[in-house]
Amino acid sequence: MKDQVIITISRQYGTGGREIGQKLAEQLGIPYYDRELISRAAKKSGFSEELFDQLDKRATNSFLYSLTMFGSTGTNGMTLTDQLFLAQCKVIREVADAGSCVIVGRCADHVLREYKNRYDFFIHGSLEDRLQRVRTCGDYELTGKTPEAALEKMDKQRATYYNYYTGKVWGKCDHYDLCVNAGRIGVDASVDVIRHYISAAQA
Amino acid sequence: MKDQVIITISRQYGTGGREIGQKLAEQLGIPYYDRELISRAAKKSGFSEELFDQLDKRATNSFLYSLTMFGSTGTNGMTLTDQLFLAQCKVIREVADAGSCVIVGRCADHVLREYKNRYDFFIHGSLEDRLQRVRTCGDYELTGKTPEAALEKMDKQRATYYNYYTGKVWGKCDHYDLCVNAGRIGVDASVDVIRHYISAAQA
Repeated sequence: MKDQVIITISRQYGTGGREIGQKLAEQLGIPYYDRELISRAAKKSGFSEELFDQLDKRATNSFLYSLTMFGSTGTNGMTLTDQLFLAQCKVIREVADAGSCVIVGRCADHVLREYKNRYDFFIHGSLEDRLQRVRTCGDYELTGKTPEAALEKMDKQRATYYNYYTGKVWGKCDHYDLCVNAGRIGVDASVDVIRHYISAAQA
Repeated sequence: MKDQVIITISRQYGTGGREIGQKLAEQLGIPYYDRELISRAAKKSGFSEELFDQLDKRATNSFLYSLTMFGSTGTNGMTLTDQLFLAQCKVIREVADAGSCVIVGRCADHVLREYKNRYDFFIHGSLEDRLQRVRTCGDYELTGKTPEAALEKMDKQRATYYNYYTGKVWGKCDHYDLCVNAGRIGVDASVDVIRHYISAAQA
């Protein structure tokens, strides 16, 4: 790869977006960030990893409920949720400043919107393809839900979270350089198509 | 190309989507349909090409105004606009039945939604990239408008037309196999990326 690149990946649940990000980073020989960002943000901010986990996973509560939970403003006039989000933003900017990287989720496309050498990708798939993946691939924690319910809940949470913090619409194609129906072509081919796009932009 | 493919292309104004469709068809050695569909629909239906032109271009009137213009229902209970649209749908299905092809615009992705060997692409670009293209490339009729105004008007018209006839949201990534920011990489590279996607799906 010629230049320094910041790659952000947003994804619907059950598309293999995380795996696409990992393989992309591996093939380009650059760091991959996902959960790692939480540990860093926790260390920097003094908040516990568990708190970030709750912001990040929202596994049992909906995002809006978590806003209520953490919604009382502190002495600095910010809710705890906002403080956690800002601490995460700071870490995202730090890793982007440090060099090329792939960041999955966490509104990174928006957080890094001033970075010119950035590529934003959105990974999606049909309901059928995603259900198939969630059912057969061991990567998904359904926490007692049916695959259908888990999928609907996670997508809704990601959309709400993104729309709340960015003021933009999650999955609206204008925000991304490439939106890929990965359900139809699979993880490896999606990585290829994305690499093809980046190479073309750098040519 | 291994199999028969139906390729539909939707595009924001000023992205070179039509040129992308033409080059794609040329490289794959399959027919390209755009204005040609109007002549065919006119011949088949008995309505004049000028009427289809008005449905298609909506150059001076907004789509909703044209709905009013053509809005009075005939003896079959359909507005003229609806009759024109249905005549166009029929021709779109005929060309798709005849073999591989590229169809630009005209809600073809929705009209052909039951065709399994179909690939749907959406071409978009930043406002700056599109204005630059509209200003420097001779392909765009501004009909007395500033590039900014032409761009806003055409996008709005295409979205209204699409949303009205399909009940879906124009440019929402879920409807497409690939949404390409062509402003960033240009026409030829976009054609490459799209071909790459189709090859992967057929592999």
